[in-house]
Parts: sequence; structure tokens; C-alpha cells
Amino acid sequence: MSVDRLVILGVGLIGGSLALALKKCAAVAQVVGWSRREQTVLKALELGVIDQAETDIARALRGADIVVIAVPVGAMERLFRQIAPHLRQQTVVTDVGSTKGSVVEAARRAFGKLPPGFVPGHPIAGIERSGVEAAFAELYEGRRVILTPVAESDCAAVARVRNLWELCGAEVVEMDVLHHDEVLAATSHLPHLLAYALVDCLARMDESEEIFQFAAGGFRDFTRIASSDPQMWHDICLANQDALLAMLERFSGDLAQLTSAIRRGDGEYLKRTFLQAKQTRDRFCG
Amino acid sequence: MSVDRLVILGVGLIGGSLALALKKCAAVAQVVGWSRREQTVLKALELGVIDQAETDIARALRGADIVVIAVPVGAMERLFRQIAPHLRQQTVVTDVGSTKGSVVEAARRAFGKLPPGFVPGHPIAGIERSGVEAAFAELYEGRRVILTPVAESDCAAVARVRNLWELCGAEVVEMDVLHHDEVLAATSHLPHLLAYALVDCLARMDESEEIFQFAAGGFRDFTRIASSDPQMWHDICLANQDALLAMLERFSGDLAQLTSAIRRGDGEYLKRTFLQAKQTRDRFCG
Repeated sequence: MSVDRLVILGVGLIGGSLALALKKCAAVAQVVGWSRREQTVLKALELGVIDQAETDIARALRGADIVVIAVPVGAMERLFRQIAPHLRQQTVVTDVGSTKGSVVEAARRAFGKLPPGFVPGHPIAGIERSGVEAAFAELYEGRRVILTPVAESDCAAVARVRNLWELCGAEVVEMDVLHHDEVLAATSHLPHLLAYALVDCLARMDESEEIFQFAAGGFRDFTRIASSDPQMWHDICLANQDALLAMLERFSGDLAQLTSAIRRGDGEYLKRTFLQAKQTRDRFCG
Repeated sequence: MSVDRLVILGVGLIGGSLALALKKCAAVAQVVGWSRREQTVLKALELGVIDQAETDIARALRGADIVVIAVPVGAMERLFRQIAPHLRQQTVVTDVGSTKGSVVEAARRAFGKLPPGFVPGHPIAGIERSGVEAAFAELYEGRRVILTPVAESDCAAVARVRNLWELCGAEVVEMDVLHHDEVLAATSHLPHLLAYALVDCLARMDESEEIFQFAAGGFRDFTRIASSDPQMWHDICLANQDALLAMLERFSGDLAQLTSAIRRGDGEYLKRTFLQAKQTRDRFCG
């Protein structure tokens, strides 16, 4: 058994799927689920995602080997402060937040000095549904998990967190905190923002009812991520403000270039840009 | 038999799928396929998509009941000029172009006076693959086809084109030419442009190789349409310049608002925008 007592704080899609995956491969003896809301943990218990439901943080953490923090990034600092008095020296603590700089800063503020067992992490495996009802054991199979250990992180703790995700079928890579935030701003945060912006833009047009009726498959796929949890993405945008603003500036500049190419009827520019984009996408996602 | 001799000019995904759908329901006696390139029509013949392969426009149009023009919108005017001398008075001519204003203008320039059999049309049914090899009979099932008859269009011709698409399982609606171009700029042309712009933006970053490796499912879906045919989208952007520029201006303004909300940390604005987008998308695409 890899883990005796795994404590998941925030039992939604991400935390719930981790529990299910580790149970499936019999890597964990007991999963404790904690949430501020009793309804959430009782649901998780009923679905067999966790073995013990807690709304009291001290009781939840008692005897924990590994603590996984799976609440929205905006709620992490408060939770760090709540758990700080109850952690043992050897407890491994990791998180699943989509931004890492803000989480490490929040941990520094909450803990004072970062505990050696703290290993920031991020499974690249979201879907647009959320909540424990959407959790499934295969979510992490073949997906990447980025760990961003800090100077204080203990090697043994990093190895345990790595092992945890590998047991779920994920490929684990390590990366610098800042670099993680830049990469994710480009591949995830900016696309989400563009999808939200497009749907909102169309929704506020006079003929919006009619417009959406003529949206085809391409539009559906393009905007799928605009069905993601608004609270979670609100948190991410504010938590990764710097990297996201840099990407927004870069993208807006490119879009302005493309717009003026259309305005001046510069077909060569358009063809070159579209061809390069198609070739790049086919190469990486084909 | 609804159609004796259907002539498809441009046998790619759209024209080929129309031929297959009409053959499947035995609605057409003979399908003639024409292309500038012999290789294309021979391939279509080999695949059983057409019954007769032509590269000579006069021979292709001989005895045609209905002519379907399925070449990229940028190639239509030239083709209109080529077919003009060979059309009979009663021949029904329709097209499948993604823009309608430019096609009607091109037809006016090429034909002088629009023939009463001319019924502009647009099946909302693209996929990112192209070419006759990608054609399949079910492409139009449950999809919408927009017809934009002009003042000169004969009612009987409109009815025949409508019937053609309904036989393929499509739902046919009629719309004003300009309105079509505005609606499609919003739901199709702008999203394609944003997807191309995003992939190109990331491709030109220093760390692009690494960045694409961390692109997850959301990114794949968001950018799927960036794998579309660059020549076709080049044509569309130039053909629907006015409506697309209007949408780009609107979208860029909205994105600038969202950017400044992130910059000033206006969480309420973000949450409101994301929630409205999610609710709208769930309602129309859920």
C-alpha cells in the first residue's frame, strides 16, 4: 500500500478522480474527504469516492500521510492557514491548482516558512464539467502532471507525490514555478478567456438568439471550454494575472495585425498565417 | 427521380458529400463531376462519388438540370464566367459558398443580369478535413442549409434547391444575403480567425515546441478549426471583409475590456462575464 491515509481537501472533479484512481489500483488504504460543505462530502461518501467524510479540518488531518489540496486557487490561502496548525513534520502536502506562483505565495504567507513536505502540483486534466459527480478513475491516464518543487521541498516528498500521480497513469514532469505559469497562460488560460469572450460577445448582440441557432460543430468545439466553472476561472485569471496579461498583449497585437491584413486585403499575409497555424496544429494535435 | 443530371463543379468534401447523399436516397439519376484538375475528378469517379468525370466545362454542363458550384468562394467569379455561355434558360444553379454577398456580386459581374435559376446557398456543415476523400453521405443530416434567394430568383428554382438539401436530411432556412454574412461572421468566420491567430501566436513564441506539449484537451478542441483549409479561409476572410471587420472590432473591444478587468483585479466583472458566457453556451450547445 503506497499511502495509508490520504486526505483530500475539496472533493470535486479533480480531487474525486484522484481518489477513484488510487482506489482502483489499490494504492491507498483510506481516503478521507473534507469540504466546507457537508453536502459535498456526504455525496462523495455515497458515491464511494471517499471512505470518510469530514467537515472539521482538525479531524480530517489526523494521521494524514498525504494531503491533497483540491479547492479553487482563490480559496487556497485561507485553507493553508486552517491546516497549518494540524500538519505533522513528515506530512506531505500537495495541491492541484492551475496556477503555481500564486499558490506558492499564498503558502508562504500562510505557513510563514514553507514546510519541507509541500510540493506544488498541477494535473493538466480538466474537463468542462465539475463536481464530484463528474469524477472518474481514468481522468489522469496518459495525462501530464506538472510538479513545481520549491527550494524548501524535500526530495522524498517530491518522490511520493510523483509516485501518487504515476499510479494514476499520469506522466509527471517537473518545472520551475514561473515557467509553469507562462506555459499554462499560453495553452490554457488564454484560450479559456478567448472562448468566454467570444460567447459573451455574441450573447450581447441584438440578434444573439438567432446567431446561436446557426452555430455549427466548429463553434461548439471552439467554445466548449466556455462551459467551464466561472468561479474557478475567475480565480485563475486573478491568480495568474501577470503571465496572462503578457499573453493577452501578445495575442491582441497579433489579432490587430491580422485585422489590418484583412482591411487592406493582404491575401498573402492571411494565407501564410493560416497555413503556418494549420501546419503547427496538425503537427502537435494531429 | 428528383434530378436527372446533377452537375457538381468542384468535387471536394462539400460537393462530394452532396453527391453521395443524393445517390444514397436515389434522388439523382446521374452525377457529373467537374474539376479543373483531372486527378480530382478521376479520384471522385474511382470512389463512386460521381458517375461521369469532366474537366471540360461545356461537356460537363450539357443537359444539366441542376448545377452546384462547390469551389472556394475566391474561385467563383471566374467559374461563373466560364459557365455563363453554357447554361440553358431553365437550368437551376446554386452554390455552397460560406459567404453570400461576395458570391452574388461575383455572379452579377459575371452574368451581367442574374439568371432566374440562380439560388445562392450555404450548407452549415464544414469539418476541418477537406477533399473528396473526406466526403460522406451523412454530412448534411440534421444540419442547416441557408438559402439566400435574390430578387431575380425564380420561386420554382428556390423550391428545387430546397428539395435537394432536404433530401440530404438538412433543414433549409431562407435569409437575406447581408444578414447571412453577418450571422456567419459571428458564428463561424470570427471563431476560425481566433483559432488561427492563437495557434500562430503560440507557434511564434520562443518556447513554442515546449508550449504545445502541454496543450490539453481544451486546447485541442479550441483550435480544431485551425486545421481547416488555409486557402478556403483566406478566400472567406477577403470575401466577407466588411462583416468580419465589424465582428473583429466588436470582439477586440470586448477583449480589451476583459483585459483591463484582469489588470485592475476586477473579480466581479470577470465572474459576471464568465457566468453569462457559460449560461449562454450551456443553453444553446448543451
